[in-house]
Parts: sequence; C-alpha cells; structure tokens
Amino acid sequence: MSSIPPPERHAPPAPRGPGAGARQSSLREANLRLVLSTVCAAETPLSRAGVAATTHMTRSTASRLVDELVAGGLLTELARPAGSGPGRPATPLGVARGTVAALGLQVNAGFLAAQVVDLSGATLAARVVAGDFVGSSPSQVLARLADLAREVSAQAAPAPRFVGARVALPGLVTSDPGTTLLRAPNLGWSDLDVAAGLGPPLTPAGETIPVRLGNEADLAALTVATTAPGRPGPVADFVYLSGEIGIGGAIVLDGAVMSGRHGWAGEIGHVCVDPDGPACRCGSTGCLEQYAGRRALLRAAGMPHATPAELVEAVRAGDATARAALGAATRALGVALAGVVNVLDVPTIVLGGHLGQLADVLEDDLRDLLATRILSAGWVPPAIASATDPTAGARGAALRELASVLAEPARWLA
Amino acid sequence: MSSIPPPERHAPPAPRGPGAGARQSSLREANLRLVLSTVCAAETPLSRAGVAATTHMTRSTASRLVDELVAGGLLTELARPAGSGPGRPATPLGVARGTVAALGLQVNAGFLAAQVVDLSGATLAARVVAGDFVGSSPSQVLARLADLAREVSAQAAPAPRFVGARVALPGLVTSDPGTTLLRAPNLGWSDLDVAAGLGPPLTPAGETIPVRLGNEADLAALTVATTAPGRPGPVADFVYLSGEIGIGGAIVLDGAVMSGRHGWAGEIGHVCVDPDGPACRCGSTGCLEQYAGRRALLRAAGMPHATPAELVEAVRAGDATARAALGAATRALGVALAGVVNVLDVPTIVLGGHLGQLADVLEDDLRDLLATRILSAGWVPPAIASATDPTAGARGAALRELASVLAEPARWLA
Repeated sequence: MSSIPPPERHAPPAPRGPGAGARQSSLREANLRLVLSTVCAAETPLSRAGVAATTHMTRSTASRLVDELVAGGLLTELARPAGSGPGRPATPLGVARGTVAALGLQVNAGFLAAQVVDLSGATLAARVVAGDFVGSSPSQVLARLADLAREVSAQAAPAPRFVGARVALPGLVTSDPGTTLLRAPNLGWSDLDVAAGLGPPLTPAGETIPVRLGNEADLAALTVATTAPGRPGPVADFVYLSGEIGIGGAIVLDGAVMSGRHGWAGEIGHVCVDPDGPACRCGSTGCLEQYAGRRALLRAAGMPHATPAELVEAVRAGDATARAALGAATRALGVALAGVVNVLDVPTIVLGGHLGQLADVLEDDLRDLLATRILSAGWVPPAIASATDPTAGARGAALRELASVLAEPARWLA
Repeated sequence: MSSIPPPERHAPPAPRGPGAGARQSSLREANLRLVLSTVCAAETPLSRAGVAATTHMTRSTASRLVDELVAGGLLTELARPAGSGPGRPATPLGVARGTVAALGLQVNAGFLAAQVVDLSGATLAARVVAGDFVGSSPSQVLARLADLAREVSAQAAPAPRFVGARVALPGLVTSDPGTTLLRAPNLGWSDLDVAAGLGPPLTPAGETIPVRLGNEADLAALTVATTAPGRPGPVADFVYLSGEIGIGGAIVLDGAVMSGRHGWAGEIGHVCVDPDGPACRCGSTGCLEQYAGRRALLRAAGMPHATPAELVEAVRAGDATARAALGAATRALGVALAGVVNVLDVPTIVLGGHLGQLADVLEDDLRDLLATRILSAGWVPPAIASATDPTAGARGAALRELASVLAEPARWLA
C-alpha cells in the first residue's frame, strides 16, 4: 500500500488560497465560527472547558477563541453560580446582549411591524401599527415602514451595531439575496424593489446596512426552527402554515427552511384542494386559502369583521354557519396537508397566524382527516402544533440576518 | 490578534481517532474517494494530470491514487487517442467494466426484473418476466425473483464481484438500510421481510451479499439523476412520476432522491386531487392514481386490457371515451403536480412508466393547467420531460448499491 503525503486537502476541494497565511486565517475563522455556534446552541451555559470538550479543541485554543469573542462583543461572561462546591467555579459563557443586532420588518395585510433583535435572541425594541394594506400604495406603506424601522432602531438601548435589515412579505420574492418582490396577491403589490422603496438609512447612526426581503411564512417558520440565533427550536422537521388573509407556508427540514430552486417553495396556500372550488386571485381555482384563509373563512362563517377568537366563540356556542365554515376549512387543510406529508414525509405540522388561534377547535377533526389521507399515517401519525405570534415574520427576518454573524464572526468583532 | 496553533481540526468536529495512523488512513480513503468520484463524474475521460488538476492534488499524489484504483479493479486505462499531436499522449482513464457490480431487482404488478450493473454503469445481464402479481403470494413471487437473480448473476461475464442487491418495490419500505416492505397496495403485500423471502445466496459464488429494499419510484428517479454511478444526469432538480397500475413518485433535489424523515417521501400517487372523487385502496378518496394510474385510466377509457400505446392511438383517432379519460387524467396530474411545484419550487417534471408513454398526447394540456395553477409559473414555467424504461426501478436499485463503492472505495479494491 503506497503511503500518502501529509494532509494537503480534504474532499470536496476548496479553491487554493495564496499560501499558509490564507489557510491560517480561514482556520481561525472556522474555529471562531465553531466556538460561537457551540455557545449559541448550548442548552445550559458552557464554560471555556465545556467549549473545549464540545468542540474537541485543546483548552488553550478554546480559551483564546472565547477571549476574542468576548473582547469583540459577541460572547459575554455570565455571573458565576454561587456556592457550587469546592474550588473556584468555572465562568459560564453566554451570547452578548445588545451589542450586535438586526432589524426585522414585516408588511402584513393588517399591520406593519418592526423589531430589533440581538445576537442572544432578545428583542431590544418592537412596534406594530395596525392598518388595512390590501390594495395599498407601496410607496406610502414602505415610507411608513421605514419610519417605524428608524423608530425602533433608535429605541434599542444600548445602541447595538446593526448587521442588516430584512423585510418579511406575504408573497414571492426573488432568491436570497433578493430585493425584489415579485407578487404579493393579497397586498396587490407586484414587481417592486422594496429595498429602494424603504429609502434613506434605517438606523440612528445613519450607516448603510443591507436590506433584504424574505417570504413571511419562511421567516415565521424560522422562529419555530430556531429560538435564538444558532439555537435549535423544539422541532426540526415540519410544515408551517401562516394563516393571514391568505395562507403562506414553509417547509423546514433538519432545522433549515427549504427555499426551493428560486426561493419560492412553501406556497401551500395555493395548493388546489378542489378543482371545482372558488376562483382564487392567483388565477387558479379551489386553492386552500379560499377555504382556510382568514378572509374566506370569516366570510363563509357569516362574520366577515370578526376576529378568529370570536369565530372560536361562535363555533363553541354551536353557531351552525360558523361550524360549517370551520368544517370546510378543516377539510381543505386536511387535503392540502395530507398532500404535503405524502410528498415530503414530514412528521409535524405547525399552525401559525389565525390557524394557530383556531387550532383548539379544528385539531381533532384535522387529525382524523390526515389519518385517512396520509398513506403512512398508520405507522406514524403526524403531530400538530400551533404558534400564535402574528409578528413572527418580523422576528424571523431579524434572526435570518443574524445568521450572517454566526457564519462570519470575525467580520463582526468590535 | 492571537495566533492559532497548527491545524488540529476543521468544523464540524469529527470523533477523535487513536492517533496519526488513523488520520493517515482516513485521509487515504478520502483521497481515493475523491479521485474515483472525479473519474466517474468526468464528461470526457481524464488523464492522471487531469485528475490532479480537477482535485487540486499534486500530480504525484493523484498518479499514485489512480494506480491504486487501477490495480484494485475500479478504474482502467483506456486506449490512447491515435495521432493527437506531438509527444506521447496522456493515458485517458475510465471506470473499470465488469469488475465490480450490483444486482438490481424489481417487483412490478406486471413483471419481475433483474439486472446486473457494473461500476461503469454498463448492464452485464438483464431479464424481465411478465406476470400478473396483483394480489400475489409473496413467497412464490420472491422465490421466482430469487431464481431470476441467480440467473442474471451467473450470466454476467466476466464474473464480477457483487457489492450488494437491492429490490425496487411499489410501496412504502422502511428507511435505509431497510429489509421490510410495509405496504404495497397494488400488490396486496404488507409487513413483509423481503430480504428473508429471497432466501439463499443470489450470486454464483454463493457469497452472502447484503439485500436491501427501496421504493420503485425513488430508484427509477435515480436513473434520471445519475446516468452511471457518480455521473450526474441531465437534470438535478425534478419531480418524478412513475406510472404503473398506481402511481409512484419521487422528489430529486440537487441530484439526490429525497427520502423524507422515514423514507416515505414522494407518494404523489396518493395526493388528493378531488375530495369527492372515487375511493382509493389506500383508504382515502380522489387520489391522483384513481385518475391517472394505468388501471384507472384504461378502465375509464373503456379499454381495460389495452396498452398505453393503444390508448394513444385511440386518442389520436378521436375516440371520445378515450379522450375524456385522458382529459380527466391530465387534469388530475395538473392539480397534483402544481401542488408539488407550489410547495417545493422544483423546475422540472419527469413522467415515467405509462405516463412517459402518454407524454406526447397530454403534455400540451398539462402545461396549460400547470401555468394556471402554479403561483410562480408566470416567471418560470416548469419543464416537462419523459422517461420510458419500465425496468428503471431495477437499474436504479443497482445504481443505489454501487454508490457504496464510491463512498468507500478502499473496501472494494481487489
């Protein structure tokens, strides 16, 4: 057997750097990334020794990298636990609060939202303003959203460094890094450069930060997949439905939101559940959102101006029209979600937006329908969960931007 | 900036080996894998220098690894091109033929198939026997399949080393490495240990080789994703429909068949396209295969014993019943496939089995239906392609087994 010279590469091959210097620097970057992501992901705070053990680094290497991240404002030393046995207790590490943050924005048919979220996942400032943005003027709405963004970014204290802003939109956007909204049927917006529409700097320091777009459901799903930057949430594989005027959706596999070839995956609201069903403004017929979207459902229930909570009350009080509408919505959800599970074999369904608020009154029937329509349900029936934060899109937008700090920590050291 | 000690690891961390010896050996394995996969993937044969350039290895390292793979029977030196300029032309490299092979088997409602495929992708032997296996006795059918397997493995010349066998089945199987068929509705089989049912050794040398199972559509899709082991096919992202008595399906993303959490992804045949539609033997109603499965389609066309080719003739001759049945099947395909594209954002649809044979007469209508029902079709209309090898499942089963040679070439050196 021939012998192999010392390590010069591992598969897959990376582009060759200019020499040892470049390799040192990319190794440092990789090691910083590994240490930062290890601390972010930890369920309970790790010490320097814990970081070394988890990453299989030497204690001196791990310690030096932690020091760099603490000095650079990405990690912080937490208070030592009091009275925990003999000897000097190790210093627990946490993600720094308020040092590095992102701006998460959201345009919904019924509200605008803006949040500042830091690397630890804490919300430093948040605002929501209600409104009716169906068929609205993009320039006016985006100007209001920009004002809101400037407001929350000025409120965030202590003033963080902003890594970027992202806008959650209920429609198709171009793939990451995208700045164009192709079509948001329920806002009536299309082919729109949203980043340009937001105009002048959004942060108090007036620096130019990148502004990107994302699909609202994809970003809301991210708040379920990750509770804070780099920290996995309770479920890693799920279908997320975002109940709004219409219905958005996202597929999360192994904790990552599936974007599809062009960034348009997850449009479950436009899955056809009955070809002879009502026309949808997307141009098709019988789309899921024509039964289970908030507007269609409340209209069918005979209470177009009610809230989802009022619909729940009416259903519980035995209102026949409300019950029939909820039944039709549930059957439509059963058809569409069973299709998704048959095709993707994902074990969990998370109902968000108004569907999350209705989960209590539709969950049992939905479970029965799925048991009938999912080929593998006899072996593994799907789990159903709910999520009810309407501004999850804004939070997810900020989380998505903060992922760039985890990907390139060296760039964000103070 | 603190300096970082010499490379001790890259993220993500691997379990620590017992020392430098283990690292050398896993490096050799990684390098053999890289060289083998580079030669397998090459569109035109590479020389040793070409391998070095593609892998960024030194020429001496690449050359030594190629020599090992040639000596071990996985690669081969092809004839030098005649008269190609001054100097001694470089020796082109190819994948060895007939040295290492896998057994691909398939149980279909209408036939049994067995193939021996080698690492170069060449079919060394193949047999198909027709039959009616709907509601058949698993033990009898598996005994016949085992005979067929022994027959083709004895015919393969020169006698290759067999790396494994895999059986393509039209149903749900347990995740890889799985030996249990959970349910094949159209065969009437369930909860069956297929590997045990095949019984004694399948190869002439009588050695015990691993026998695994796979979903027929997943494996057939693999023949589109890869033309030979390690060689990418013409499309990397697609939905595959396998038209049989029923309809199987698979999702291929980035050249890999998506298995889902339990290995059950791709059941497009059981996507509901009309909740008020006919009952399906899966227990649901209005499943795609109740309109576009071969049996349902031919029955609706009033020609239950005809072939797909005869249906095409009848449609072209203007037979009204045949046209109506084809129209209903096409509308059902439109609903189900638009749902898949809306959810997954995959740009290509590949029609296999009888659907591939019908592609010419349904493609235009299907395209129109998809344009209406896919939210993003105005920006990127999906492409439709067809594949018509009925035994693609058997070939895909062999390709899937041969992937283990690419993953661990050192194990398979002669």
